[in-house]
Amino acid sequence: MKKEKIFFTPGPTELYPEVRKYIEEALDSNICSLNHRSSEFMEIFRHTADMLKKLMNIPDNYKVFFLSSATECMDRIVQNCVESQSFHFVNGAFAERFYRTALELNKNASKADADFGKSFDFGNISIDNSPELICITQNETSTGVAIDTGEIYKIKKSYPDSIIAADIVTSAPFVEIDFDRLDCAFFSVQKGFGLPAGLGVLLLNQKCIDKAEQLKKNNISIGSYHNFLSLNENAVKYQTTETPNVLAIYLLGRVCKSLSDYGIQRIRKETEDKAKVLYDFFDNHEFLKPFVSDKKDRSKTIINVEAGNRQNEIRKKLADNGIIAGSGYGKYKESQIRLANFPMHKPEDVMRITEILK
Amino acid sequence: MKKEKIFFTPGPTELYPEVRKYIEEALDSNICSLNHRSSEFMEIFRHTADMLKKLMNIPDNYKVFFLSSATECMDRIVQNCVESQSFHFVNGAFAERFYRTALELNKNASKADADFGKSFDFGNISIDNSPELICITQNETSTGVAIDTGEIYKIKKSYPDSIIAADIVTSAPFVEIDFDRLDCAFFSVQKGFGLPAGLGVLLLNQKCIDKAEQLKKNNISIGSYHNFLSLNENAVKYQTTETPNVLAIYLLGRVCKSLSDYGIQRIRKETEDKAKVLYDFFDNHEFLKPFVSDKKDRSKTIINVEAGNRQNEIRKKLADNGIIAGSGYGKYKESQIRLANFPMHKPEDVMRITEILK
Repeated sequence: MKKEKIFFTPGPTELYPEVRKYIEEALDSNICSLNHRSSEFMEIFRHTADMLKKLMNIPDNYKVFFLSSATECMDRIVQNCVESQSFHFVNGAFAERFYRTALELNKNASKADADFGKSFDFGNISIDNSPELICITQNETSTGVAIDTGEIYKIKKSYPDSIIAADIVTSAPFVEIDFDRLDCAFFSVQKGFGLPAGLGVLLLNQKCIDKAEQLKKNNISIGSYHNFLSLNENAVKYQTTETPNVLAIYLLGRVCKSLSDYGIQRIRKETEDKAKVLYDFFDNHEFLKPFVSDKKDRSKTIINVEAGNRQNEIRKKLADNGIIAGSGYGKYKESQIRLANFPMHKPEDVMRITEILK
Repeated sequence: MKKEKIFFTPGPTELYPEVRKYIEEALDSNICSLNHRSSEFMEIFRHTADMLKKLMNIPDNYKVFFLSSATECMDRIVQNCVESQSFHFVNGAFAERFYRTALELNKNASKADADFGKSFDFGNISIDNSPELICITQNETSTGVAIDTGEIYKIKKSYPDSIIAADIVTSAPFVEIDFDRLDCAFFSVQKGFGLPAGLGVLLLNQKCIDKAEQLKKNNISIGSYHNFLSLNENAVKYQTTETPNVLAIYLLGRVCKSLSDYGIQRIRKETEDKAKVLYDFFDNHEFLKPFVSDKKDRSKTIINVEAGNRQNEIRKKLADNGIIAGSGYGKYKESQIRLANFPMHKPEDVMRITEILK
């Protein structure tokens, strides 16, 4: 059956091609009726965490926690890692959300701003007050700006006492991370993993757990069922505090296995090739232009394109050909299109986009 | 195809029979690729909220918020409705969790205890310090004790300034509630709605929103993305703050429609009939006995049975016949079985349980 539509939206996006098959397997094997303390569930948790660690080269000392969304990850990171001071690199809507989360949780959050569509002048940013937590949005889904991971590792080196948290919501699993050179990262599954929304994955090291422990000792609330101590206590048994989205955890394990079998380096190479096709095309287009002007800042997985007052027409033209493109974000909603470039997006469909818009 | 297993576990439990079909519909119509600000998503939200309100006779002035679990509902209720003082009726593990949630969020929680398997002597409980929130577990999933809703309404009448929150996790949609006589109720979908886990539903009135507003004005943190003000601001537009479990919201709408078409009063009658069959059977059984001795306290939807040292043998016997029964909870894990009695559980399968255990 030929699919009528292919979603190039930043996420929720095109589903991983085998998702339907995996869901059928899950239904056939009664996974949705399992108790989250059962050995069958524990085996699913273990398998998914292992496959994810294998795929993304996550060290054994890292914890894998299953939450409900990337937004929840931000909430829990602040709750568990900050008594008073957090610092945020803000260059778009999702970085801003992380910053606002800290404010809403009554923390003293401070920030460095960069313009929408730009990265930071890292050499000239000094971070005062030794923040307990430093947050950086490695791939800003609203603007299509990616931060070189090397810059994140430098921050970690400069502020060794701080916890460094990276939002990799729309860059995982493409982005290659040396997890020993940061402390915490998170994503949700409806982006680069091509799954239905409803699961956030939080990866963190012992430093984050220790910090939560310390806050608790100081009588600072670290939250209830999803505080890091409760999550960790359960995760070491391959369990969760509450009944989680078991189906999503199962599906993530299946997709990670499939991606891993295909080969992560191959996926990375293909992602770069597809990104090059798109950026080259738009760099040479008559009126459609990449929004991120500085080539080194361009995300390989979220590609923002300036379409001005022809945005609607362009999206419609793509839609008429079965390609669903995302709109811009916030004030660029009507003037930009956003194209995701995830493992599900085939080179031939990327080529098709360039054919349609030629 | 004859199903090999039927889950009578308290939840996750047997799936609603049409779930597979509904998931296929969802996949066919690309629901898992929808943006949560799109008109298509808003229509799904609206439909599900409407169907739920119709099914459970929830007044128009009630808000329907989609969270990730019933456990999260407890967390958010405390965060948004308590500056300092909450009170909890505790007669089992889930009531205890609500109480502990308040303590973990650094509130002054107090409680009245009842023995496991018993209800409360409501006439002799006085609640001091005018708590901002009074929590009651209408149907205690760990013990199989149900509280008569009339008792909840009396509490509301006696403490008109408090917010009254009821845990109806394993009684919805069976339990008939006059929502004007409490302020807040919540459940998760993997129980009486027969859906995959990963969605909690929080129902509340304006009083809860006003309270959250007041706390915020007093500079008390009410949480970040899932504070009631943010949830409400989005819900009035049929949206959510973050990308939610869209598939689960869709499925819940389909199940509510189906249950509603079948007739809620018919479901209630059938539930009572099936409960009677089971309780009568166990009341007259040689060695298996209902755990809740006082008949007026017995839950119609969660039936705890004392099996002593033959629990394992009984569960195995049922399993050999394709019936998966739950174990007891906590210290009763090895000595009790728990049987759910939800709309998916057919009278003939309930009869079969009695045949097998005769």
